[in-house]
Formats: sequence, structure tokens, C-alpha cells
Amino acid sequence: MNKIRYKLIIEYLGTNFVGFQKQNNGFSIQEAIESALLEYTKQDVTIYAAGRTDAGVHARGQVIHFDLEKDYSPDILRNSLNHFIKPHYISILSCEYISNDFHARFSAKKRYYEYIILNRISPPVIDKERVWHIHNPLNVQNMKQAAKYLIGTHDFSSFRATECQARSPIKTLDFINITNEGEYIKFNICATSFLHHMVRNIVGTLKLVGENKIPPEEVEKILLAKNRIYAGMTAPASGLYFLKVDY
Amino acid sequence: MNKIRYKLIIEYLGTNFVGFQKQNNGFSIQEAIESALLEYTKQDVTIYAAGRTDAGVHARGQVIHFDLEKDYSPDILRNSLNHFIKPHYISILSCEYISNDFHARFSAKKRYYEYIILNRISPPVIDKERVWHIHNPLNVQNMKQAAKYLIGTHDFSSFRATECQARSPIKTLDFINITNEGEYIKFNICATSFLHHMVRNIVGTLKLVGENKIPPEEVEKILLAKNRIYAGMTAPASGLYFLKVDY
Repeated sequence: MNKIRYKLIIEYLGTNFVGFQKQNNGFSIQEAIESALLEYTKQDVTIYAAGRTDAGVHARGQVIHFDLEKDYSPDILRNSLNHFIKPHYISILSCEYISNDFHARFSAKKRYYEYIILNRISPPVIDKERVWHIHNPLNVQNMKQAAKYLIGTHDFSSFRATECQARSPIKTLDFINITNEGEYIKFNICATSFLHHMVRNIVGTLKLVGENKIPPEEVEKILLAKNRIYAGMTAPASGLYFLKVDY
Repeated sequence: MNKIRYKLIIEYLGTNFVGFQKQNNGFSIQEAIESALLEYTKQDVTIYAAGRTDAGVHARGQVIHFDLEKDYSPDILRNSLNHFIKPHYISILSCEYISNDFHARFSAKKRYYEYIILNRISPPVIDKERVWHIHNPLNVQNMKQAAKYLIGTHDFSSFRATECQARSPIKTLDFINITNEGEYIKFNICATSFLHHMVRNIVGTLKLVGENKIPPEEVEKILLAKNRIYAGMTAPASGLYFLKVDY
């Protein structure tokens, strides 16, 4: 039987989820969406995502695909899923038919992440759980200079979580744009794919530069050392947003 | 005895409060701050705000003042209040000494509000309770044109809540800047002071223009009618932010 493949773009607030992927220790985004699909279509459906975000990480443009036996109008499917997924902090932004050779993960050409730091003394309340709060003033110019060493194709072992399952530590960073908007410092990062915790480990290392604990040039040495122990802490999940995927 | 006056700038998420002002029917921002002050200073303190925001309205720059008998270092006072006010969604951004003739409300020269609409089909989750979600596409150009009729000094009776206690309905709007950032439409509004619900009633009326339910010129007629029944609905509190006060 011919199945129909759908591509969905999804927003979520990661705070109250154990991450994207289904797990035994709590409620995942995957489980929430598959439950809504089961409720609406009465079909057991497995969904596939462009990136399996960790607990607490948000998305403004996660992409998933799945197959259904029945033909639903994409707009009706989107609205129905948004209905059944309440009150979870997940919103289906768009839904469309896609060819059966499309795969949310394996067809992805570019992935875009944003990391947001709130740099001020007082804790955030409007943006609670939505930023990394750092109260020491950060030197953004130095962070920009340090980020340049990471652009391009490198062995990113120094920025790779020990539990990372990627076959190779070599990745190509297309850009890291750092912008300053008042008290907010935003990191926009693009690559075809990332190692586990790579964005958060990069931000945690650039934070050391921003605090003047290490000079910008030190980031090149950390990169060349190819050893996780030389880089900074893993920045908290709360500041990370999966923004967009290009296919 | 000489009392010492303090000026504080405050951020809050209005969602779970009955409004700024102390009330019998629930927990207010005033009560939260006065309780933290009592806990820290052991003094019963009354605070005064630049604007008494309604239930659900947020602030990124509300200003308050109060007097203490003891001299606290402003930085220590700010940090201590931030400690005692947890877990409420209120953050003291700054604290400074101010002269005894300063009054947060009566000394205010300009007040700035922002109203944020999220204009897309799917409901917000990252910005839940932080925007007004409108799913029909709005014509921003027409809203900008309509807003021009409201700039300057006018009788704003058409945009005034029936329970408004201001002596005069005549106010001067310095500007309404409407900007489009992706799916977000932001209204930045400035005046010395506002009537009750004035910003929300203006946004609710401009929304009718954006939906092409009334032409931009109709807003001038509504203004000249000086009667609340001709204007649009009161836009929800969730989209409104008290941004800043000039003294």
C-alpha cells in the first residue's frame, strides 16, 4: 500500500521535556507528537526529526517527517495536531506533502542554531528558562575574534560530548555570527551537522573568552588539542534554539 | 527622622498576578515586593509605581520608589530583594538613591509601552502568554497609516475604559511606531501619561484596520466620535509591556 509522507515544521519550549527522543525516564517531544497522531489518525506512527535536541533545548524550526496510510489535507492535519497536542508546549507551524525519498534527518543540507545569553546582573523573569543568564559583563569583541578560529572544517573533538556517537569528529562550521542587542548576546551558528553538545560546548568556551579568563587565541589551541578537557563548560540547554533546516 | 528614598527599575511577567496594585482578590506585584521588603528590612514599606499595570500586563522597565529608615547600599538592597522575591516572576534590575522630592508616578515625564502581536496560523508556545496571537494575516501598512491619526493631542474618550478615573480624556501621543519582524508585529507607543486601557484599545482598533474590516481613515472618525463604543476591542493584556519611564 502506498503511504503518504508529510513534512512538518515545529516549535517547542524544551523546558518540560526530557528531549526530543522517546525515553523511559520522562515525557519527550516525540512521545507528545506521536500520541497526538495516534489520537487523531488512530494509527501508530513513528516520526523522524532533523535533530534530536536534548532536554531543555528549544526549537523554532525543528523538522520532522512521518508516513500515513490515509490522505489528510496538510492544513487540516496541522490544525488537528495543534488541537490534540495541547496543553503541551509544542506547536505545529506548517505541514506539507513531501516525496517518499525525503528524510528529515538524512536529507538535511544545513542546520541553524541560535544560542541566547542574557548578560546583566539581575535574573531573567520574562525570559526565564529561555536564555543563559550570565551576570559578569562579557567582552563581545573578544568572543567574535575567538569564534573565527572555529569557522571552516576542523576536528571538533575538543567540543564533543563524551557520549557522542558520530562516526567522525570532523565537521564544517559555515558561520558563527555573534550579535549584541542590549543585554542579549546572540550566537547564530550554521553547519551541515553537529557533534553532540557541540554548539553548547562552543558557547561555554567563548564565554571564558568573554570573561577574559582566556585570550581569543587560546580557542585555536583548544581546537587543535582535540581533547574535550581543554574546552569550557557545556552551556545550559535553556539558551539553545534549533532554528531552521535547509534541504 | 530622615528617611532615605530609593528608585528601583523592575521587570516582571504579569501572567500570574492580579496586576501591579494590591487587591483583595489575589496576589499583586505590589504585595510581592512589599513582602520582600518586609522580610529583608523588617519594615512595613509602601511602594509607589510609575504606572499601575493591569492583570497579565508585563514590565521590562516599571519604576517604583519607597522610603527606608535605614541606609542600605543600593546594590545590596537590589540583590537582597531579588533573593527574597523568588520564586515570583519579578526581577529588580536596578536600585539607586533618589532625592526625597522624586515620585515614581508624579515625576514621570514620558512613559513607553510596547505591544507585541504574533501574526501566524499556529499558536505560540515559546511566547505563550507573552504576545497576542492573531492568525489572520494583518495589513501592517494600513495599520501604520491609521496610527498617524492618533499622534498628537486629542480627546481619547473613544479609547478610554469606562472605569478610567483620569480627570481629563485629553492626552498627547508622542509616537506610535509599528514594526514588522518576521511573524512579530511590534507597536512602540510613547506619551506623558495614558488613559486606562488606552494602549490596548488603540491596538484592538488598529487590528480591525489590519484585518481590512475598517479603512485606515475610519480611525480618525472613531477618534472624533469621542465614544468608546466606536473603537475596537481591548487587546489582551498578554501582549503589553511597560518598557521605560523618563524623568
